[in-house]
Amino acid sequence: MLQKGWKDSLLSLYAQSRRNSRFHHCPSDKTKRLLQSQIFQPTNLLEDNRPSWLTYKSQQLMLQAGLIHPSSPGCYSYLPVMVRAMEKLIRLIDKEMQGLGGQKINMPSLCSATLWKKSERWDLVGKELFRLRDRLSKEYCLGPTHEEVITDLIASQHNFSYKKLPLLLYQITRKFRDEPSPRYGLLRSREFYMKDMYTFDVSEEAARHTYRTVCDAYCRVLSRLGLQFLKVQASAGNIGGQMSHEFQLPAEIGEDELLVCSSCEFSANVETVQPDQNRCPACQGELTKSKGIEIGHTFYLGTKYSSTFNAVYFNAQLEPVVVEMGCYGLGVTRMLAAAIEILSTADGIRWPELIAPYQVLLIPPKQGSKEEGATALIEALYDDISKAIPQLKDDMVLDDRSYFTIGKRLNYANQLGYPYVIIAGKRALDTPSQFEVQCQNTGETLFLSKEGVMGLLNEVPAV
Amino acid sequence: MLQKGWKDSLLSLYAQSRRNSRFHHCPSDKTKRLLQSQIFQPTNLLEDNRPSWLTYKSQQLMLQAGLIHPSSPGCYSYLPVMVRAMEKLIRLIDKEMQGLGGQKINMPSLCSATLWKKSERWDLVGKELFRLRDRLSKEYCLGPTHEEVITDLIASQHNFSYKKLPLLLYQITRKFRDEPSPRYGLLRSREFYMKDMYTFDVSEEAARHTYRTVCDAYCRVLSRLGLQFLKVQASAGNIGGQMSHEFQLPAEIGEDELLVCSSCEFSANVETVQPDQNRCPACQGELTKSKGIEIGHTFYLGTKYSSTFNAVYFNAQLEPVVVEMGCYGLGVTRMLAAAIEILSTADGIRWPELIAPYQVLLIPPKQGSKEEGATALIEALYDDISKAIPQLKDDMVLDDRSYFTIGKRLNYANQLGYPYVIIAGKRALDTPSQFEVQCQNTGETLFLSKEGVMGLLNEVPAV
Repeated sequence: MLQKGWKDSLLSLYAQSRRNSRFHHCPSDKTKRLLQSQIFQPTNLLEDNRPSWLTYKSQQLMLQAGLIHPSSPGCYSYLPVMVRAMEKLIRLIDKEMQGLGGQKINMPSLCSATLWKKSERWDLVGKELFRLRDRLSKEYCLGPTHEEVITDLIASQHNFSYKKLPLLLYQITRKFRDEPSPRYGLLRSREFYMKDMYTFDVSEEAARHTYRTVCDAYCRVLSRLGLQFLKVQASAGNIGGQMSHEFQLPAEIGEDELLVCSSCEFSANVETVQPDQNRCPACQGELTKSKGIEIGHTFYLGTKYSSTFNAVYFNAQLEPVVVEMGCYGLGVTRMLAAAIEILSTADGIRWPELIAPYQVLLIPPKQGSKEEGATALIEALYDDISKAIPQLKDDMVLDDRSYFTIGKRLNYANQLGYPYVIIAGKRALDTPSQFEVQCQNTGETLFLSKEGVMGLLNEVPAV
Repeated sequence: MLQKGWKDSLLSLYAQSRRNSRFHHCPSDKTKRLLQSQIFQPTNLLEDNRPSWLTYKSQQLMLQAGLIHPSSPGCYSYLPVMVRAMEKLIRLIDKEMQGLGGQKINMPSLCSATLWKKSERWDLVGKELFRLRDRLSKEYCLGPTHEEVITDLIASQHNFSYKKLPLLLYQITRKFRDEPSPRYGLLRSREFYMKDMYTFDVSEEAARHTYRTVCDAYCRVLSRLGLQFLKVQASAGNIGGQMSHEFQLPAEIGEDELLVCSSCEFSANVETVQPDQNRCPACQGELTKSKGIEIGHTFYLGTKYSSTFNAVYFNAQLEPVVVEMGCYGLGVTRMLAAAIEILSTADGIRWPELIAPYQVLLIPPKQGSKEEGATALIEALYDDISKAIPQLKDDMVLDDRSYFTIGKRLNYANQLGYPYVIIAGKRALDTPSQFEVQCQNTGETLFLSKEGVMGLLNEVPAV
């Protein structure tokens, strides 16, 4: 039981405990160099370097490079290097979504069966839905998407005015899907990160305009990553709605079959056209078959969910009107895997430059080599870049494993993927020093002075 | 089926589609002012302003202010303003954890029953664990913590060298706990965000040193938020281990009962001492009763998990040694709610300045008022701050609802919480202009010129 003077006596205790150093104070951390030897990137998790069950390049490379580790089928732990790339991709998506006026929210994973029964998806989705009961036997599913939850949230507002529209809400959260055969690493897993946006508009016309602006933002995300893509006519599946597109990264290993017109801009998932159709419905041009990895899916929903949940806004005449909706998915972890699948070589990961986990790797000479004297030079280069180009400060790694030859460390670098690898080789001891710079994404090798390196790195894009 | 020239023909399609503008290009977004009228912060979700079931101030204020919305018992949607505060808190925690050398990972929510049976927690934890089966009837739980998953990950490494230790891995992810009576909003919910760190060391001595450094980082997080706290001796509960502390925010509504020594720095959760103990075991000083909200819990685990999972490192003599572990939880969503509970007034939210969703609210004059001419002045002030103080660019809101009086908008501001509220009142039309600045966290009101406002805001801390 707390007496009346409780707060006062507690405050006096604080004062005492401060004097008694109950409150710890530590000096803040100094700037340290990031050392390759200390990064948790276990490259020794695979018994056999190329197990036969690894059919996809990205999965093999991501496991070999210590980016992910399987926990149970289709469920992965993302390791530190992977988390860095993912956080960069999330920042990129945040910027593009917020540039449209999108506002970020975060909805629960546990979605009540009541809501899902209302939309009839509880039965429709079937076994892909992870289902569970709580201690009171109430039923839930683990949300694969959140149309029900968000429409219910919008419906719960009173006097929701037309002045608030268009409203664009999105989240970047973990999603769940009980895939019949989870495989291909992060390309088809049972837990994954997805950006899902839900939009609300006053009319079909406004909703179609919003739909186009969100699709344009998807195009910008993919362009900024340097990924070629197709926006194809798609089936709306169990999400529903009246218009739908997929964003596909063309890849021979893609699971989606596409038809692309050689004369106009029509392209479609084969699911959406008649079997054996080989002429473009728009211009009668020839349709070419292609394959793609789906990384985004957009839906103009109309009032499919809003009418069921009675989500209405009030117009200028204060009359309730059912709100027009759209929804827009973008696979975050899948996009990372797909980019690796498409950009990498057979032996080495290549990242979209903007979201590479680390932009720069610096390799000092081998211990005991003739060039060992250049160690201090490349360490000074690290510190100078760190000071002069603040956005690279946390994006540089020093490969301090100087017990390995430069060649061996270059092999690692080639496998793990760094847009810029800087080597203190023979010419580092020239006057002035020349550093070897390997640009992994372009394949170029340059010999540059310190100023030249700084000039090059100053242009590295950051998100 | 894909013919041989597949890639070439596709590339030529790209070239065409580029010309055909299949690839959309939109102009990048210009800097816009952030308008109060456009923020999705529904303050009208509660039918009754103070329903009797809302016993906690933070829950009531967060619902009233449109920060959260209940989806099902103990499961909330976090709305945009809340997400901003949460992302700032996460950045703060990231910085402190990475300052210690912590590396960020991300483990699955679906945790295999096999792992949990191995640690015997499958039966021990009981009904608090959400359990489910997948389509193949394999059992999983939704992870409330991840000792099993991470120890299994560490155990799966080959030749894990002592040179890699200490290793500090952490994640900030959604956790699940089937609370018997979820209540008090985000103070006790069934889905919540938690930072959990797991540390690995060569010896007990090293592990105890790591334990102290992580506790110190917790102290820094709380100090930077301006929250007074106690680090108390705690029970290790079902997590286990040999030493444990809780970080408690003293509050009369706290669910934990604490004993605090008035003479030395001893403090403890009552669970850890004999009933009716009223003398400090360390110095025989008097123990004062207190109550707290637990927001962090640290455990020195020893080899409890690592011996079960055979997680070993190899020492300098290449002998396997069972690794020493610690684990450290810090409630993210709970800390936000607890800070609001402690700092707020009965009617208005007060945020720790560092993580306030928005730092500055600017209120222009009412339409048609004598001061209306000052609208342009305060809009220019917004733009000038935006340019001169880049870290505030996205942290300012213009309350454009000029159909309301300044007083009414001030009431809203008082309810929602902004460290700095800038008003263009009567003196804004003086030469030079004087703006009224209300500092919510200190209660001060200042009249400042534009330069004075800039000087004040230049000192606002950012994370």
